[in-house]
Amino acid sequence: MKMTISIFKWHTKLKHIALPTVLVVLTLLLLRNIAKSNEEWELGLQVKTPEIESKEEVKFEIEAKQIPLEIRPGIFFDAWAYGLKDQPPTVPGPTIHVKEGTKVKIHFTNKLSVPASIHPHGVKYTIKHDGAHLAGNPNTIVLPGESRTYEWDTDGTPGTWVYHTHAFEFGGEKGLEKGLFGPIIVDPKGTQSPPDKEFIVFLTTYKIGDKTFEAFNDKSGEAAFFQGDTTAFPGEVFHAKVGEKVRFHLVNADSEEMHTFHIHGHRWKNQRGGELIDNVSLGPFTMYTLDIIAGEDVGQGNWMVHCHFGSHMMMGMFGILAVR
Amino acid sequence: MKMTISIFKWHTKLKHIALPTVLVVLTLLLLRNIAKSNEEWELGLQVKTPEIESKEEVKFEIEAKQIPLEIRPGIFFDAWAYGLKDQPPTVPGPTIHVKEGTKVKIHFTNKLSVPASIHPHGVKYTIKHDGAHLAGNPNTIVLPGESRTYEWDTDGTPGTWVYHTHAFEFGGEKGLEKGLFGPIIVDPKGTQSPPDKEFIVFLTTYKIGDKTFEAFNDKSGEAAFFQGDTTAFPGEVFHAKVGEKVRFHLVNADSEEMHTFHIHGHRWKNQRGGELIDNVSLGPFTMYTLDIIAGEDVGQGNWMVHCHFGSHMMMGMFGILAVR
Amino acid sequence: MKMTISIFKWHTKLKHIALPTVLVVLTLLLLRNIAKSNEEWELGLQVKTPEIESKEEVKFEIEAKQIPLEIRPGIFFDAWAYGLKDQPPTVPGPTIHVKEGTKVKIHFTNKLSVPASIHPHGVKYTIKHDGAHLAGNPNTIVLPGESRTYEWDTDGTPGTWVYHTHAFEFGGEKGLEKGLFGPIIVDPKGTQSPPDKEFIVFLTTYKIGDKTFEAFNDKSGEAAFFQGDTTAFPGEVFHAKVGEKVRFHLVNADSEEMHTFHIHGHRWKNQRGGELIDNVSLGPFTMYTLDIIAGEDVGQGNWMVHCHFGSHMMMGMFGILAVR
Repeated sequence: MKMTISIFKWHTKLKHIALPTVLVVLTLLLLRNIAKSNEEWELGLQVKTPEIESKEEVKFEIEAKQIPLEIRPGIFFDAWAYGLKDQPPTVPGPTIHVKEGTKVKIHFTNKLSVPASIHPHGVKYTIKHDGAHLAGNPNTIVLPGESRTYEWDTDGTPGTWVYHTHAFEFGGEKGLEKGLFGPIIVDPKGTQSPPDKEFIVFLTTYKIGDKTFEAFNDKSGEAAFFQGDTTAFPGEVFHAKVGEKVRFHLVNADSEEMHTFHIHGHRWKNQRGGELIDNVSLGPFTMYTLDIIAGEDVGQGNWMVHCHFGSHMMMGMFGILAVR
Repeated sequence: MKMTISIFKWHTKLKHIALPTVLVVLTLLLLRNIAKSNEEWELGLQVKTPEIESKEEVKFEIEAKQIPLEIRPGIFFDAWAYGLKDQPPTVPGPTIHVKEGTKVKIHFTNKLSVPASIHPHGVKYTIKHDGAHLAGNPNTIVLPGESRTYEWDTDGTPGTWVYHTHAFEFGGEKGLEKGLFGPIIVDPKGTQSPPDKEFIVFLTTYKIGDKTFEAFNDKSGEAAFFQGDTTAFPGEVFHAKVGEKVRFHLVNADSEEMHTFHIHGHRWKNQRGGELIDNVSLGPFTMYTLDIIAGEDVGQGNWMVHCHFGSHMMMGMFGILAVR
Repeated sequence: MKMTISIFKWHTKLKHIALPTVLVVLTLLLLRNIAKSNEEWELGLQVKTPEIESKEEVKFEIEAKQIPLEIRPGIFFDAWAYGLKDQPPTVPGPTIHVKEGTKVKIHFTNKLSVPASIHPHGVKYTIKHDGAHLAGNPNTIVLPGESRTYEWDTDGTPGTWVYHTHAFEFGGEKGLEKGLFGPIIVDPKGTQSPPDKEFIVFLTTYKIGDKTFEAFNDKSGEAAFFQGDTTAFPGEVFHAKVGEKVRFHLVNADSEEMHTFHIHGHRWKNQRGGELIDNVSLGPFTMYTLDIIAGEDVGQGNWMVHCHFGSHMMMGMFGILAVR
């Protein structure tokens, strides 16, 4: 294999080879073998296309729990996570995906040891469903062991939104950095041709001691890593076939940093102006939606997806759009 | 009162209660009492709707002075502030609000001990009104004790803009972090239906020693704090009635940080693309205008307004849209 | 000369005058003399209007080399730079400026001692021209002393784009901070009236030890500094005549920082929405295009152009739009 040989030929010229370098090479070789196997794409993390609720009213039972979130192979973050009742909690939390006009009821139970709540962006709700405890409004956060029902109306609120905790007392203020956030997708009224695939990507940061880990998503429970156990990259994989219309819903869920989202080999019409771009900046808890045709005029490949802040990419804010 | 009791019930389980926590609870209780009193909204900082000058030419006499700016109850920042002659200087400075096409003359007197100037964004002016002293242009900064008249033309420049000092010599370079900035609003020609209320919000940061205070506005002279004297929040309050059309003019006046502006329970059509958003990112000295209908489909409430960088919000970049 | 005298009059009141202050004053005086001389604008760095390639296919021979890049008078950065074969390498690298639909072939030779590559934004290419070595794709980085041909298609990809190294192994990962980036401009199909002048501006940061230098461009080989050898500003100059249609292509080539781009006395229709702005925020490796009429309604002058992050401007991210 010419490539491999040429690396090693050059390799032998170097005098001081650090262990990490060797591991990278081994990983790459391992990866090539993996890529040839039948299991090829099964290693990747498939983000399921969320199902659209088209009823007039939908109800969700959501709980907040403490979980060990595997953010890298063998590295666990002490997370707080939303989950559907009787299902394992995840970070980001369950997807609330509805047609515009649907009324949403969330029965929320707080199984954490600190206050928590569900505060939504974008959708409509009266102040007693704000999920906060500030400014003389009714207190709508949920104390440990208690429950509350939040009601939202999605009439006139199409878009990509986020829900998150807004409890800033007695330790609850750590909720955002701990993982208490999830997506709300409201499809517009009328008949649009839906995309073939939809991916929801949260740009997230976790701190363990003085180490920072960044990623697209880090869904616990179904985490598997594209590049094998010896790599530092979370390597979330988004699968699509050549020609499929793919929609990415982006949420910057990092309370302290700007991030960008760049896809190799693809470009999209910027919804915020119409020009073509291939990289977009996102402030904390701002959202963005983009549509591409997978592999259009460029074909198959493991197209990289990454934040273009160099240090963020190196900390793991990285993935693959795997087009076949 | 069930809510209060349940907090305290849970409260007693905790072993180590820090003083700040107690103060927060006391403040919240105090706040509830305040909210019931007749004075309810008088405590808030009402940002006056600026009046539009419709003359062909308007003149302003503006002075720069050193003032103690009360940025938190009892905490004073050694500010440099613009003010109309014979009126107390404020941060941000006086609002220049005109109809497109108006010619503006600013007679500026520098009563500081360092050079200062007035440099405008957006409007038209010849180079001798640039308010700077660089690059071989005429020197148009103003030395201590001296005066200068700046002339602007607003024909073809509708929008939300900012003016600020641009003197970068002999200590004048601290002007931006000291508070030397103010708003320019140019209403477009033709007959638009004006909003019922307009708020001008400056996203500001002040450093005192190693402490950082952030806020929406911090107007000196009329500062009063919604949450009472024991809270760390500046708590600027924007008052509106249900159904009123409200326009926010945003200026990020922080030279070193990105910020965002998020409103609870409301969303707006992004002027930069048309999609609905409820949170927008702003780089240093960039501006943004947004329109909402207060309380539309969501009703009354003290709707929170905040920067979604978590640390900025905790440092005070926070307010209330009080809808009645 | 009244201005100069008034500065010195005030000057003599000060007790502690640091050497830098004196140098600034001397520089300003020197500058005024320079500005009167016949050589006036020859000192400035003229960014050439790139020529448009209208052939069906164009080929470029590009090499990467190590060069001493003079980023300030007498201050050299140990850069890695792209250059056309047999021409001095520059930072940013050679401009690839073509009409939409042109096929581009880049024959790249790596004359550095670490791996490097050319990875393009925006244009179309199959995965074997990605210029990376990750995720099980063919390895398309170039080892020291080797060559590779990259092929791009610009059909359907009008816009301002960037190319850069994407080799993240064996020291190659320092390529972005070392200067391995350059512009791709794809003019749209059809007959647009082209601008009279086009400037390509890279927002760049260089670190030497614990010092940070920021700038618009820093093209080596043709670097000359507007404000003379005693100033810290790189002072890139963009020349235009009153009434000329000027297009700026912006690329934030700083992997770690947000930047803004602000022009004095001018404003433009934001391509991302249509409102007028005079300052725009750019995340790492995002691009932006803007059109102005030089000196429109404001006339001649040395109109400042700068990043509005105060510290970035003071580190040199600064220039002059010299309108005559």
